Amino acid sequence: MPSSTSNNVRLVEVGPRDGLQNEEQPITVADKIRLIDDLGHAGVRWIEAGSFVSPKWVPQMAGSDQVFAGIQRLPGVSYSALTPNMQGFEAALAAGVREVAVFAAATEGFSQRNLNCSISQSLQRFAPLLEAAKARGIAVRGYISCVLGCPCDGEVAPQQVTALARELLDMGCYEVSLGDTIGVGTPGSTSRLFEHALQQLPADSLAGHFHDTWGQALANIHASLQLGIRSFDSAVAGLGGCPYAKGATGNVASEDLVYMLNGMGLHSGIDLPALIAAGQRICELLGRPNQSRVARAWLAGNH
Amino acid sequence: MPSSTSNNVRLVEVGPRDGLQNEEQPITVADKIRLIDDLGHAGVRWIEAGSFVSPKWVPQMAGSDQVFAGIQRLPGVSYSALTPNMQGFEAALAAGVREVAVFAAATEGFSQRNLNCSISQSLQRFAPLLEAAKARGIAVRGYISCVLGCPCDGEVAPQQVTALARELLDMGCYEVSLGDTIGVGTPGSTSRLFEHALQQLPADSLAGHFHDTWGQALANIHASLQLGIRSFDSAVAGLGGCPYAKGATGNVASEDLVYMLNGMGLHSGIDLPALIAAGQRICELLGRPNQSRVARAWLAGNH
Repeated sequence: MPSSTSNNVRLVEVGPRDGLQNEEQPITVADKIRLIDDLGHAGVRWIEAGSFVSPKWVPQMAGSDQVFAGIQRLPGVSYSALTPNMQGFEAALAAGVREVAVFAAATEGFSQRNLNCSISQSLQRFAPLLEAAKARGIAVRGYISCVLGCPCDGEVAPQQVTALARELLDMGCYEVSLGDTIGVGTPGSTSRLFEHALQQLPADSLAGHFHDTWGQALANIHASLQLGIRSFDSAVAGLGGCPYAKGATGNVASEDLVYMLNGMGLHSGIDLPALIAAGQRICELLGRPNQSRVARAWLAGNH
Repeated sequence: MPSSTSNNVRLVEVGPRDGLQNEEQPITVADKIRLIDDLGHAGVRWIEAGSFVSPKWVPQMAGSDQVFAGIQRLPGVSYSALTPNMQGFEAALAAGVREVAVFAAATEGFSQRNLNCSISQSLQRFAPLLEAAKARGIAVRGYISCVLGCPCDGEVAPQQVTALARELLDMGCYEVSLGDTIGVGTPGSTSRLFEHALQQLPADSLAGHFHDTWGQALANIHASLQLGIRSFDSAVAGLGGCPYAKGATGNVASEDLVYMLNGMGLHSGIDLPALIAAGQRICELLGRPNQSRVARAWLAGNH
């Protein structure tokens, strides 16, 4: 991962997974493959391409094995998958996945609601997965949700998040992405969280994951960048949301983030016009408005 | 104005002027008065309430004299008006206005297009107005548009903006608001501009005015706050735009800014729920969607 003083910023594109999983419109495997290939060709180097989870729980993610079978594997691009347990991990491996992600919640309330178990039970569930991944040379990324506020438990202390992030790193995750799942964070709470975490953990082991529900996502990323964080999750066209947080809008739009980074002299390696085209195509397929302000301004010919 | 290390931030509410002037829906004088009174009751202390300009050019601002006659003048609240020339200034005085604003462009192209004269001609036009204001104890605020990019002339050098801001301050403006009229700025260009300006001018003589066309407004304000800027223009519900910049969306939403400031421990004195209610009411009157993400999340019961 880029170091905290680097001009390089890593963008993990979560549109095909966190994004589409929370869209109401169904989408075909062929359209998912097209989106992922479009993103790869736009220069996106980290793409979360699917989820190996029971289709009973997340019907939108059915067919992730077919997605992985159908995408072009561009050189230098990592195509990862969310794997909640050993069963999902084995299925991912069988589909040729070389990087996986595990998912914990910062609060007991959200862990129970989203994962149906306590936080420590979720870690126990990941333990064999992380062992197996290590043995087979598979990279594992950790997510922590609700780091700046929880729809069940309210405010979240930075201590709680840092301790959990440390556990996930100790268990073998190469990076932990801290997620403001309900988008309530501001540069104030974002800075307090990362300042606390950075007392114990290196900047290049942490990522930021912001939703734009309260309009704060880019400001929060700006605050994170200033503390040396250089890895962020985003979703093309601002796809997605969170089905458990009422009215939650999607992830920060990748286009808006790339535009900001370009303006700050920071490099993501992503071609903005190609990214905008990829986002607009998936929006048209889904029949949804494009949530990226940069895409809307660009497509209005305003450049 | 608050000093650069203060926890107090001044918000100049420009919705009733910069906002409504660029809305397509006509609005009655009574509805304008209601909006301004709602804003005052929400704790907004600086409200740009109208414009004394020829209705031939800006029909939405017709009746500003009736607006000033009809509003409640709450103690501690400044109700200002845009006055492009002596004729407008005299009309504003006759309407009981005690603070006015003048408007210049950072580029010759935009000055010609928007003001129909060169930059230096626009300053000559303001000169007698500033003299008269000084003689009568009327505060004058200056605006500079297109400070981070121009639809006619493209990129804008910080030197150009700083020099013009200094001229306006020298002529007697108590503060100059630097406007990213087309919303193309990023925290990179915003920081470069204010860093340059602050080499020559005190922080408490400058304000930031950001439009959210490219989604960067709050991030730009965050960057400005870190450089000690403590005065910002915003428009409730993200009203407005710029008729001369194709596809330009409105000013940064006041609600989103207040939410961010609250989260950063900075004080505007504004009651957020009352502000949200004021914005939603004007949106319903105009039959337009509320552009404040904070308002939308709040009104979805997401708090």
